[in-house]
Formats: sequence, structure tokens, C-alpha cells
Amino acid sequence: MAVPTLLTADERSTHLAPLLAKGWTMVEGRDAVKKTFLFKDFVHAFGFMSHVALVAESKNHHPEWFNVYNRVEITMSTHDCSGLSFNDINLIKVIEEAATAAGANL
Amino acid sequence: MAVPTLLTADERSTHLAPLLAKGWTMVEGRDAVKKTFLFKDFVHAFGFMSHVALVAESKNHHPEWFNVYNRVEITMSTHDCSGLSFNDINLIKVIEEAATAAGANL
Amino acid sequence: MAVPTLLTADERSTHLAPLLAKGWTMVEGRDAVKKTFLFKDFVHAFGFMSHVALVAESKNHHPEWFNVYNRVEITMSTHDCSGLSFNDINLIKVIEEAATAAGANL
Amino acid sequence: MAVPTLLTADERSTHLAPLLAKGWTMVEGRDAVKKTFLFKDFVHAFGFMSHVALVAESKNHHPEWFNVYNRVEITMSTHDCSGLSFNDINLIKVIEEAATAAGANL
Repeated sequence: MAVPTLLTADERSTHLAPLLAKGWTMVEGRDAVKKTFLFKDFVHAFGFMSHVALVAESKNHHPEWFNVYNRVEITMSTHDCSGLSFNDINLIKVIEEAATAAGANL
Repeated sequence: MAVPTLLTADERSTHLAPLLAKGWTMVEGRDAVKKTFLFKDFVHAFGFMSHVALVAESKNHHPEWFNVYNRVEITMSTHDCSGLSFNDINLIKVIEEAATAAGANL
Repeated sequence: MAVPTLLTADERSTHLAPLLAKGWTMVEGRDAVKKTFLFKDFVHAFGFMSHVALVAESKNHHPEWFNVYNRVEITMSTHDCSGLSFNDINLIKVIEEAATAAGANL
Repeated sequence: MAVPTLLTADERSTHLAPLLAKGWTMVEGRDAVKKTFLFKDFVHAFGFMSHVALVAESKNHHPEWFNVYNRVEITMSTHDCSGLSFNDINLIKVIEEAATAAGANL
């Protein structure tokens, strides 16, 4: 696979802005975005994580995530380019879809 | 926990019949029911299984299930009473809800 | 990825024979192998399956597997060439390592 | 289940001390312990988490955990008594066993 590259300004307008409108926020001091998902309970939270984990591994692009009970806080950024790349945009789309299916609020 | 007991005829009318209407069928030669779920792909199938596994373990009541790629075939019965009990009805409700959330067809 | 091809006779001697010595057996009527793993309990069985699922998805090569409680029966074959390929050999190595780590008996 | 209670000083000597000797450390400002586990890769890290998640849900006692790639940072404390209880000791034993099986270093 090609080495991922940082999103350009144009790409941020087109691909990142819609995610910011869906509750993702920039992380202070890093070129990264984060979002907190709340589920009904641990089963729904970890079922969601298991789904995302399968995609993350197959894309070889992994989230930074924290979980306690029904809460999952996810930070996305790309290690290889020290900032946001299309790998993040693509995994965030999977995350959003899986979180909605698992009944996340926020 | 109390030892599970076989569903009575009345309980079958009330609790099992609605499941048969949703695609569960009696297994030949056993007091058990089965259903096949088809998902979009392996990620959705195994994400569903991960969710169900967490509930199964917490209830100490486990399915018999077969998976290949996007297909999950589940048989439910209760070992301790050699047939269908409320444990099966309760786990099937979880299975149905999780399968629908994960986009299963059938 | 290249389309997988059937193992040659030489490759079977070199790569398949050691697996047959470890308890994998040919499936009747198919060019496929199978093995049954027994774990301490469902947690160990499904933890093992979760590990294997991550690898399977990332390699886009998925097992046929049946689970009830502590038992996992796995059949491996490659759909794209209707028989055993290196994809099976490679995933079986992962399965063997993960099963041993999770304390499987056989 | 009975409401969990804080470990007594005697119980800490007997049950907590051995965990501190295995790399668990007290969290500053909380009656909680934490430890970081490093695995070979994401597959081993998340396979470990899947195993622990099944036990956590069945015991209705859930970790606070952070994961990125091969690293899992776990904090244990009991919400219902705002500090360390036997629920933590018991889950930590499961965590240690599963981490060792999955090849964690540290």
C-alpha cells in the first residue's frame, strides 16, 4: 500500500467538514479528531468495538480508543504521516455506520 | 439459578409461536429451533456473533452456531432440560434484535 | 491478490502432511481439512474465535466453523479454487498458534 | 449480588500486594490500580480484550481500558464503592491469565 499522506486543505473542506458536523472534534495540539459514543450498555459498546476492530485490522489502520461500560471515546489520526489522512476518513465512515447500527447516542 | 424446565404447551403457544412466525423452525428429531441469518459480509456476521456471545456468557446459556463468511446458522435448545426452555426464548429475543441491528436478511 | 490455486502433490507432502500429523483430517468428499478444538469453557473458545476472526478478515480468507460452548469445529478450504490452497495452510498455522495459546486440548 | 465493599487493610496486604508486585500501580488521586500490557500486534491485543470482555460482562464488572494497536492500558476500580473491591481482584486475576496466554510483555 502507498504511504498515507496528510489531507490537503481542499480535502478537509470536502471530507473532514461533514464529520465535524457529526460531532467529531479536533484534538488540541494534534492533527487528529475524536468523538465519544454512548451505547445502551457494555454489550452494545463492545459489540460495536468488535465490528470496528475487524475492519481496522483488515485495513491495517487502528483507532486509539478508550472504553468504560457503555462509553467509547475514539481518536483517529494516522501514525505514518503524523496527522489526518484518507485512512482516517474511511475508518470514521465505518465507525459512524456501526455506531448507528448499534444504537449509539450523540 | 433455578434449573431450567421445558416450556409447557401453553408457553409454546404464547412464546414460541411468534418466533416460528419470524423464521425459526423446529429441528427434526430434537426439541430445538434453528434459523439462518445472512449478513452483508463477515464483519457484520462476526460483529453480531460477538454481541450475542457477550449476552450468552453473561446468561450462561450458549447457542450452537455455525458460521461461514456472511452466514450464521443458530440452533437453540437447553442442555439441562434436553429441550426448549425460557432460556432459549430469552436469548432468541437478543439474537433477533442484534441481527436486525446488524442488517441481517431473512 | 492473485487467485489462489490448489496445492500441488509436492506442496501437500511438505505443507499439508505436518497438519495431518497435528490432528487435521481430510473431509470426506471434499478437498478440505477439519479439526475439533476443545477449550476450558466458552470464554476461552470464543476468545480464540475472536482472535482468528481478526486474522481471517484481514487475509480475506474465512473458516467454516461450528461452536457450542467450549467446542470449536473448523473446516478449511478455499472457495475460489474449490479445494486446499496456501491460504488454508497459512490460516491453519494462525489457528494452531491461537488454539495452543488459549489452552486447547486435542 | 451483594453490593461490593472496599478492601480492608488486611485484604490489601493479602490480595492487592501480589498484584502490585506484578506491575499494577496505584492511580494517583483514586483508589484504583492500572497496568499497561504490550502485545505482539493488534490481533493479540484485541483477542485478549475480547476474552476479558466476556468475563467482565458475565461478572457485571467492567474495566476502564484504552487501546491503540498492540497496547492496552487497564484501570480497575469499583464504581459502587468508589474504590478497590474483591471484584477488581477477581477480574485482575482473569486479566493476568489472559494476558499471559496472549503473550503480553511487562
